Amino acid sequence: MWSRRPFAIVLSAPSGTGKTTICREVVKRDKDVVYSVSVTTRPRRAGEVDGVDYFFIEEEEFLEKVKRKEFIEYAEVFGYYYGTPVSNVREAFDSSKDIIMDLDINGALNIKRLFPEDSVTIFLLPPNLKELERRLISRKRDPQRDMENRLERALKEVEFYKYYDYLIINDELEKAVSQVISIIDVERLKISRIKEVKWIKQSQ
Amino acid sequence: MWSRRPFAIVLSAPSGTGKTTICREVVKRDKDVVYSVSVTTRPRRAGEVDGVDYFFIEEEEFLEKVKRKEFIEYAEVFGYYYGTPVSNVREAFDSSKDIIMDLDINGALNIKRLFPEDSVTIFLLPPNLKELERRLISRKRDPQRDMENRLERALKEVEFYKYYDYLIINDELEKAVSQVISIIDVERLKISRIKEVKWIKQSQ
Repeated sequence: MWSRRPFAIVLSAPSGTGKTTICREVVKRDKDVVYSVSVTTRPRRAGEVDGVDYFFIEEEEFLEKVKRKEFIEYAEVFGYYYGTPVSNVREAFDSSKDIIMDLDINGALNIKRLFPEDSVTIFLLPPNLKELERRLISRKRDPQRDMENRLERALKEVEFYKYYDYLIINDELEKAVSQVISIIDVERLKISRIKEVKWIKQSQ
Repeated sequence: MWSRRPFAIVLSAPSGTGKTTICREVVKRDKDVVYSVSVTTRPRRAGEVDGVDYFFIEEEEFLEKVKRKEFIEYAEVFGYYYGTPVSNVREAFDSSKDIIMDLDINGALNIKRLFPEDSVTIFLLPPNLKELERRLISRKRDPQRDMENRLERALKEVEFYKYYDYLIINDELEKAVSQVISIIDVERLKISRIKEVKWIKQSQ
């Protein structure tokens, strides 16, 4: 009926809010959305597939990419690098697909800067402060004594929701998934994304 | 969870695209949306209820309101006046309700001018040119010989879709209704409408 420009959907959230699960679920249900697979230097674990879970590359190659500014965001965690290449977005757009990605606040702001018209940013929040605390604890990556620091950091992150387009309270996974899908459906109806409506064109 | 500013939803379409039916259906399903009842000077018909179908007023009062610029849009049709008072919007907002209204292109542009942040405009199109023609004929308000003029006018109107936020192709009433409802649901998640998220406020 009409042709439109594809767009990038960015999910950000304090850790443990389930953003990766939501991304994977959306891609499963909507065949016009692809998932942005990250690049990493950490060794592949049993069961992981290159190009599906991550693109596994050597550190030297990773740092080359950093130098060439090929990442929307990257980080070092426990001695390994993780990054999201901007080429993921361009390849999706070239094949007329929308792309969904979980990024931190810097990554989300970068996407807005690189693709101001063609990006939609969503901030996920747990329903309340207690739940945020509970999810941080249940991750248990850091010793208990770091909890206060982590909570403080999470609360700082949370204030950045103001820079996003949409806010979703993730009190129930299924509801959050269907809200993300609704956002994508509705963003596709936006006139600013439409290149032409065929029959109007024809009638002129 | 959060408090937000209500907004106005405007539907425009070439005549016979079913915009009034859609508005009434949305209001039936979403208790937080009210319908903008128009004001008219035409006599009340059997079965019509004042304040539900229209607000019925005298011509003198109507023209007073025109003079005081109380209408978002108004028109004269077959000797009677019809208008949409801007007070409808303000009253809905005061009671924290969203409001849905069918307006012509001028009315829609006026809403955008009056409530730039708090309005969402939707353009409805029939699926193709043939269908537009068929719907214009089936209305049969004008003699057959005016059809060419009416079609020409409708085609001119159609080009104004570019000034709207969203485009919906009304090939099936139920689908169009649920798309309007999705737009409303998603617009409610927009961070620009949120006044405060209570627990973030509390945590500072």
